[in-house]
Amino acid sequence: MRQPLRIAVVGSGAIGSYYGGKLAAAGCDVHFLVRGDLPRLLHIRGPGEDIRLDPINAYSSTKEIGPCDLVLIAVKATSNHEIVDLVPSLLRERTMLLTLQNGLGNEEFLAEHFGGERVLGALCFIALKRVSQTEVERLAHGDIVLGEYGRAVQMRTNEVAEEFRSAGIRCELTNDLTGERWRKLVWNIPLNGLSILAGGIDTAAIIADERLRKLTLEIMNEVILAANNCGHPLPADSWRELMKRTETMGRFKPSTLLDWEAGKPIELEAIWGEPVRRARAAKFAMPHTEMLYALLTNLDEQRSQKNSTALSRRV
Amino acid sequence: MRQPLRIAVVGSGAIGSYYGGKLAAAGCDVHFLVRGDLPRLLHIRGPGEDIRLDPINAYSSTKEIGPCDLVLIAVKATSNHEIVDLVPSLLRERTMLLTLQNGLGNEEFLAEHFGGERVLGALCFIALKRVSQTEVERLAHGDIVLGEYGRAVQMRTNEVAEEFRSAGIRCELTNDLTGERWRKLVWNIPLNGLSILAGGIDTAAIIADERLRKLTLEIMNEVILAANNCGHPLPADSWRELMKRTETMGRFKPSTLLDWEAGKPIELEAIWGEPVRRARAAKFAMPHTEMLYALLTNLDEQRSQKNSTALSRRV
Repeated sequence: MRQPLRIAVVGSGAIGSYYGGKLAAAGCDVHFLVRGDLPRLLHIRGPGEDIRLDPINAYSSTKEIGPCDLVLIAVKATSNHEIVDLVPSLLRERTMLLTLQNGLGNEEFLAEHFGGERVLGALCFIALKRVSQTEVERLAHGDIVLGEYGRAVQMRTNEVAEEFRSAGIRCELTNDLTGERWRKLVWNIPLNGLSILAGGIDTAAIIADERLRKLTLEIMNEVILAANNCGHPLPADSWRELMKRTETMGRFKPSTLLDWEAGKPIELEAIWGEPVRRARAAKFAMPHTEMLYALLTNLDEQRSQKNSTALSRRV
Repeated sequence: MRQPLRIAVVGSGAIGSYYGGKLAAAGCDVHFLVRGDLPRLLHIRGPGEDIRLDPINAYSSTKEIGPCDLVLIAVKATSNHEIVDLVPSLLRERTMLLTLQNGLGNEEFLAEHFGGERVLGALCFIALKRVSQTEVERLAHGDIVLGEYGRAVQMRTNEVAEEFRSAGIRCELTNDLTGERWRKLVWNIPLNGLSILAGGIDTAAIIADERLRKLTLEIMNEVILAANNCGHPLPADSWRELMKRTETMGRFKPSTLLDWEAGKPIELEAIWGEPVRRARAAKFAMPHTEMLYALLTNLDEQRSQKNSTALSRRV
């Protein structure tokens, strides 16, 4: 029998807490890096699950955690710069870095700083709500799609997938991780963007409005063509299944809207900036996406200016 | 010497009050249709002008005004449906209807209801602030460009222009009124739209932001190409002069942003909807403009729903 993996979770927001917590509940050896006060327990709720972890292994530095076999990177893409100094203490020779982050560019970021051979990525199809520091509620779904960075599936990829499956998480494997990321962006680029720009509305409200629905389809089509131009062919009618799925989602708030409502920065580069740049490098224009990118960037900057003004007033 | 024109002003917001007031101050026979309480006076202020009209001819119905030679239509384009019943009392055989409204479609609306041969249009290049019901402040500019609907300049067009000039208003004539409207839209489509969607910012803030400035230029270019495709050729570099003018404007709030901030409806169809439809009829796509149109329409509808909810709560 193989040695159980020693796992670190960097970024204990909703995603990190949920997947790390599920693995811990299944008996994996999981260690959470946590900001601020260390929680003693973790409660995961959702349709068909009610898990209490008490105690959990929580730490305020990666030095205390020490070397691991697998590191789940679950910070927001906007905090990538903060993990550069955190990860080295977790590394041994064959440590795998698995990013659970959204959008494009996160595998590349890890590869640049820690070497591409360590890097895996997963797409998380899940709707979570962070109820409190010690409680995460799963609202819907939960599957992940796992792949290697720039390589086909390896032996180790299968082992990581088995780890997730043993924790009751449906896990598919892909030989084209970047292609899968584009496929997910076909949904995230329009719906995450429009949910903010249309004044803070959920996906049901977006597709109920005839013009916004049409606009969503146009943007989906633009992303599909961009993916094709970037060497990741998606079926021309990929939008159809995504739209159908959106119709069954109900009043769903995309993660970016939740971030925005919570006053957190928007994952601008991963969801809009990087796709636009890659398409441009492939000589393909994404006018709708560029527009979302420009407007959201500006809103985000205005807010961070307001926040820093408010902060300096408080000081 | 020719008979002085009897002039009615329908819509006594900032535009109607300013141009009607200037004409009245120059001795023209001007009659204002006013909603609500009838003001006894009108005060116009601005760089180099300080005009008090006391009393002014204000009425609460067009029946009281009776037939005129010239009717200035100065309601918001969103209120066009309200003027259908108001105008007939003002008409005699040769009454001219001159719309001072923004965007595309207003001449057509008047032509459809009252006959195309009556219709003239003018573009107002002016920044006004409605200080109170009896006071209008001109912040900058003031010129108008005047033309006939679907015809070259006539004798009567010159007479109307002379009327404005005698009131100290610079007035140019055009043989392609719709072309001039497209030229103005090259500015209004991006800047009026972005000022709202970027969170309520002025034109200086828009062009100071690198991405929004680039987006503005792309949209300007799209509108120039649309105008060309609709048979109103504009120089490919028309954006250059507009951008230069915007740089000298300072912290200018487009009229649509002022409307939005005041809780008034947005002139969606005149500024975005009608250009998109005309371009589409000419088989030219305006992806940026369509996106502005969809997002602004949705914001406007959300607000009017909120307003009607608030209203029914009050009732």
